[in-house]
Amino acid sequence: MSDTLEHRVGEVTLTVAGPDGRPLAERDVTVAQQRHAFAFGNIGFDFVDLVGGADVAALDRLGALWLRLFNTATLPFYWGGYEPRRGSPDAERLARTARWFAERGVTVKGHPLVWHTVQPEWLLGLDLDEVERLQRARIRDVVGGFAGLIDLWDAINEAVIMPVFDNGDNAITPLARARGRIHMVRMAFEEARAANPSATLVLNDFDLSSAYECLIEGVLEAGVRIDAIGLQTHMHQGYRGEEAMWHTLDRFARYGLPLHMTETTLVSGHLMPPEIVDLNDYQIPEWPTTPEGEARQADDITRHYRSLVAHPAVQSINYWGITDEGAWLGAPAGLVRKDGSPKPAYEALDALINGEWWLKPTPMRTTADGTLTVSGFHGEYSLTADGHTLPFTITPTPRTIPVTLAV
Amino acid sequence: MSDTLEHRVGEVTLTVAGPDGRPLAERDVTVAQQRHAFAFGNIGFDFVDLVGGADVAALDRLGALWLRLFNTATLPFYWGGYEPRRGSPDAERLARTARWFAERGVTVKGHPLVWHTVQPEWLLGLDLDEVERLQRARIRDVVGGFAGLIDLWDAINEAVIMPVFDNGDNAITPLARARGRIHMVRMAFEEARAANPSATLVLNDFDLSSAYECLIEGVLEAGVRIDAIGLQTHMHQGYRGEEAMWHTLDRFARYGLPLHMTETTLVSGHLMPPEIVDLNDYQIPEWPTTPEGEARQADDITRHYRSLVAHPAVQSINYWGITDEGAWLGAPAGLVRKDGSPKPAYEALDALINGEWWLKPTPMRTTADGTLTVSGFHGEYSLTADGHTLPFTITPTPRTIPVTLAV
Repeated sequence: MSDTLEHRVGEVTLTVAGPDGRPLAERDVTVAQQRHAFAFGNIGFDFVDLVGGADVAALDRLGALWLRLFNTATLPFYWGGYEPRRGSPDAERLARTARWFAERGVTVKGHPLVWHTVQPEWLLGLDLDEVERLQRARIRDVVGGFAGLIDLWDAINEAVIMPVFDNGDNAITPLARARGRIHMVRMAFEEARAANPSATLVLNDFDLSSAYECLIEGVLEAGVRIDAIGLQTHMHQGYRGEEAMWHTLDRFARYGLPLHMTETTLVSGHLMPPEIVDLNDYQIPEWPTTPEGEARQADDITRHYRSLVAHPAVQSINYWGITDEGAWLGAPAGLVRKDGSPKPAYEALDALINGEWWLKPTPMRTTADGTLTVSGFHGEYSLTADGHTLPFTITPTPRTIPVTLAV
Repeated sequence: MSDTLEHRVGEVTLTVAGPDGRPLAERDVTVAQQRHAFAFGNIGFDFVDLVGGADVAALDRLGALWLRLFNTATLPFYWGGYEPRRGSPDAERLARTARWFAERGVTVKGHPLVWHTVQPEWLLGLDLDEVERLQRARIRDVVGGFAGLIDLWDAINEAVIMPVFDNGDNAITPLARARGRIHMVRMAFEEARAANPSATLVLNDFDLSSAYECLIEGVLEAGVRIDAIGLQTHMHQGYRGEEAMWHTLDRFARYGLPLHMTETTLVSGHLMPPEIVDLNDYQIPEWPTTPEGEARQADDITRHYRSLVAHPAVQSINYWGITDEGAWLGAPAGLVRKDGSPKPAYEALDALINGEWWLKPTPMRTTADGTLTVSGFHGEYSLTADGHTLPFTITPTPRTIPVTLAV
């Protein structure tokens, strides 16, 4: 495992000129980071009800906490939740929520287009051809309908287990069993690609064993173009540690595709017993957050994010939950307690994303030639001088760019 | 699970005529099975030393025990054992052993063409292109050289773990890691197919998880033609039971390819502890066969063979070892003790293969038209009448065939 972050950090040289085009020599300026290029994400599921809802104060409170840390929001497009009655999709609420995020500079992601869980009741009992036709139509409708607002999708979720899934009746498992996993993956990617050619499409799975490697190799060999490999890590049973994570990352990095850590969970209460195989099978009435658990969660999240950001193949980390209120499985996996107060894990992430990995507003001075060299995490920055503020970016390639203050 | 064996049993109607072509009406004849179409196999590794060796009595003893039960012999073509010195393959001894079996009506199988274990030392340190070139040449040489004598091969062994195998340095794992599993499978099958177009080529693995399904789906999607899916079941840690086995068989049967149970082991001593993951990691000085273990092995082998033969997709069962002498891992997995005496499991298999599933010499009588209907397991049979013996076969399709006694 590497400790260097050189793959995350870039350098840019600005040649700063005044409104008359002449270099601003030896001038005091302020440089500040505005946004990470790296996708620090979280789910935005809570906001589907909050945005446009009656409780504006609640939206403001949770929104402020959410927006302080994250730049990428995953919204729920589970078929059964999105279209519980055939032909009546929840498109308007989702679009309103997506716009709320987009207007605040947040990249919006949709999750997932094809999955065997959270399925609509009305799909059961239809024949396979009809199920496939409806599934294809749904992908086109959703991806095409949201193009421009949402250009990042989990195209298919958990294809490894899809044909042999036995934890609930659904119409997708029989289709996957009859047609094969690669057929399902191709269907998801080809329909989504056709509906939005500029979308980034992710293959997403929780199974990080050799099975997923074999699936990926088959999919690539079959000529299906995938844009990123999604790796879920719901660690309700405990943090897996840097070494194990890097071993996993290395195994999937060898396909030369970006790795998206799509679903990241660490709990701040007792750990789920190790013998549970399907996390959904562990349902308890109360799963409280505890001081010890919160300390562990904060420590784990720091170690985990450090090790992921240190791996060159990782392009995004999406945490799975902002508040414990209504969290998946009732687990205290949020970064914010039910009462709305931030946990230590929230502060720990803040210290990384907005502290150690962030360039705060910093006074700098141009040279006699009017140049200024800035280094920092890849992302968006601003230069302020003489009351003017101008944007620039830091990318992996060192560059010299002219910045001219407006008249 | 089905109890019926109707997929194993066929019927044929013989019209029996004398040398003059006239029907032999109401004639006493004897019908007897000669061979099973189903492949009941075992390894023939011990015979590589025995055939052509000095101890003819030992060959006769073990040979008689082996030949009484089995009609298919797997011979070892591990690269490291077959060609320990580059350019000096052990071809002559293997050919002599193969001929010994073939002359006795036994189908000979070679195992395996590509694997990452039992590798020659001299392959280490060569660059990947050279390793692939040599691997391809080996496949062509072996399969082409033995064509006609051996037309059944494990083309590639354990491709699921191949690129991530870490239990010993070898030249094949880095090749698989760089080129991918499907490339390795395609290489094995295409080279072998080109060298012997009529060969039956098997994809073989011990990993029966979803990973193997994903690999198979990728391989089929990539257009590689495989003739059979090989499933290893080394059950040193105990018989898995009919239900689990059938669940596994059903998962792999859905690809529409014959299933070959390539490596079947059940021990007649204590079981290997369940926490062992790689069976090779369990090495003890003495692993004795015991009366209780022998009774369990006999019971398990009966249940196992019954359930496998009952599954329509299974085309062969290969047991992995005839005698405990020199058995893999020192395990008492043989059907014969080190002193050469048959264990109860041997007798149990004999009772199935040569008893319950076998048509012993049976007196029958032709009709007034000279016809005779025989039903039995698919395979080769003989009809004896008037001192003449003639062969016929029972196949899945009911037929009427003329049998004319020679002059």
